[in-house]
Amino acid sequence: MAEPAQAVPTIDDIRAAARRIAPYIHRTPVLTCRGIDELAGGNLVFKCENFQKVGAFKMRGASNVVAQLDPAVRQRGVATHSSGNHGAALALAARNFGIKSFVVMPENASEVKKRAVAAYGAEITYCGPSLESRDRVLSGVVARTGATVIHPYNDYRIIAGQGTAALELLEDFDDLDVVMAPVGGGGLISGTAIAAKALLPRTQVIGVEPEEVDDALQSLRSGLIMPATDRRSIADGLLASLGNRTFSVIRGYVDDIVTVSESAIIQAMRLIWERMKIVVEPSAAVPLAALLTGKFDLRGRRAGVILSGGNVDLDALPWTR
Amino acid sequence: MAEPAQAVPTIDDIRAAARRIAPYIHRTPVLTCRGIDELAGGNLVFKCENFQKVGAFKMRGASNVVAQLDPAVRQRGVATHSSGNHGAALALAARNFGIKSFVVMPENASEVKKRAVAAYGAEITYCGPSLESRDRVLSGVVARTGATVIHPYNDYRIIAGQGTAALELLEDFDDLDVVMAPVGGGGLISGTAIAAKALLPRTQVIGVEPEEVDDALQSLRSGLIMPATDRRSIADGLLASLGNRTFSVIRGYVDDIVTVSESAIIQAMRLIWERMKIVVEPSAAVPLAALLTGKFDLRGRRAGVILSGGNVDLDALPWTR
Repeated sequence: MAEPAQAVPTIDDIRAAARRIAPYIHRTPVLTCRGIDELAGGNLVFKCENFQKVGAFKMRGASNVVAQLDPAVRQRGVATHSSGNHGAALALAARNFGIKSFVVMPENASEVKKRAVAAYGAEITYCGPSLESRDRVLSGVVARTGATVIHPYNDYRIIAGQGTAALELLEDFDDLDVVMAPVGGGGLISGTAIAAKALLPRTQVIGVEPEEVDDALQSLRSGLIMPATDRRSIADGLLASLGNRTFSVIRGYVDDIVTVSESAIIQAMRLIWERMKIVVEPSAAVPLAALLTGKFDLRGRRAGVILSGGNVDLDALPWTR
Repeated sequence: MAEPAQAVPTIDDIRAAARRIAPYIHRTPVLTCRGIDELAGGNLVFKCENFQKVGAFKMRGASNVVAQLDPAVRQRGVATHSSGNHGAALALAARNFGIKSFVVMPENASEVKKRAVAAYGAEITYCGPSLESRDRVLSGVVARTGATVIHPYNDYRIIAGQGTAALELLEDFDDLDVVMAPVGGGGLISGTAIAAKALLPRTQVIGVEPEEVDDALQSLRSGLIMPATDRRSIADGLLASLGNRTFSVIRGYVDDIVTVSESAIIQAMRLIWERMKIVVEPSAAVPLAALLTGKFDLRGRRAGVILSGGNVDLDALPWTR
């Protein structure tokens, strides 16, 4: 049980994950907005993971891993590197099981993110901005504590956990022509695609990523994982490179990857705030950006869109910079 | 039917309003937030009128009036003065009945508000900043069109309509110790108080207003309606003076009026955005501000809080000014 699952998750694994994590997560609401439907030229249902615990879908995957660890292993705690939502999610999942969590963060991470991770009870260790420093510091933490490293996405248990959002969505709406999610490291789109193709085989599954960090599209085209290293986007949850497990699921289950500009992301984010009266982070607005700019043509069809999270720095909104 | 109702509404009037307006409004969701409960020291349920049509509870009252107008009178249209949510609500309510609406707005109203009112199909006529100019321009519009003037709050049909938010809330939660709403012209708190006292007589009903515009508190103390003229608050939905009808309902049904500082309003608003991931306008945050600053002590009790609306200018947030 301490070893990561070795097989690509099935819908049964996602259903088992849903039962396992039910006590620790919200079944998030689904919202609609007539004004946005008119602009998108189709019918949209939004799965609101911004209302999830810690403000992001990451709580699903993190809970699914921590719940499955062998108790003796779990007792030594869990560790990860993250400058974002996975760190907060792992910290809260650990607290729910009464164990310690250790999160390695870059010194230059924003104060907002440092405070969030600390507030959920993680012990933070700072590293330099390079991948080398990050990995070295994380190895040191593990050597000292015996904690189990939980990767943010390249883990089949994480993928199964993230797939529970689409499972809930498709339990509520069994008539979706398309399901859309943002693509960063690929955990969310992988779980989403497995769930959607199993429950509604005719559904198209579309991943959307920033043009500025289009490594998933390039990886699909080249057949090799292309790194996202040193690329930047306002959608700061989507800067990670794919892993071998998420890449393999995306190749098998995702119909297409679409890319969107930075300005389209900001406009879509603002539209969600103004019309739906909800707070979403830039990464969450990426799929809607594809619909509003015609990068994906929904005309007359119905799409489920996963709004991945709502953690933003209210002092630095993209339209006030 | 063209004349305003002459009697204070009862719970039966509010129930009739709920049936009448059901096709035109959302039954809004109720959200909770454990983090805010901890800060408030009690248990809170938030009635989310920011998700209402036009983004505010005002759609309830406006719909209730337009639906009750005599058809021959209604056919000539409806008119009002408003620089805010009532204008947008009346415009949409009119459109729902296929009639014209005429909204008088000050020339210096924000572009955001002008666009919102225009987007719902109202014919806008601009006036100067003074009350005298506003009333003169509105009289001119009425003389020209024959439209019926719908006051934003000092109308028993409006009060009954606004009371449907609390009716819905108390249908869902029959164990509230306290019900709280912001106080501007008094339409929302009046309808809320009538509904709450009828359905749950032991419930305390608390109105909250800005210290900077504490005309309702002063009116209760003096026994005379004190004008709010020329006072300013970030809670720009709460700048109106009470009317004789709302004043009389508040005296009869509201247990207390509490006031809060501008900084407390901004902090409460920001907390709602950060923790609940929803967009609310400053006026909506006023009741929570009373709980967070100890101006009203909830310890160990359960309160229903009406989040009145979510229309904000995202280019001018109070914490980025």
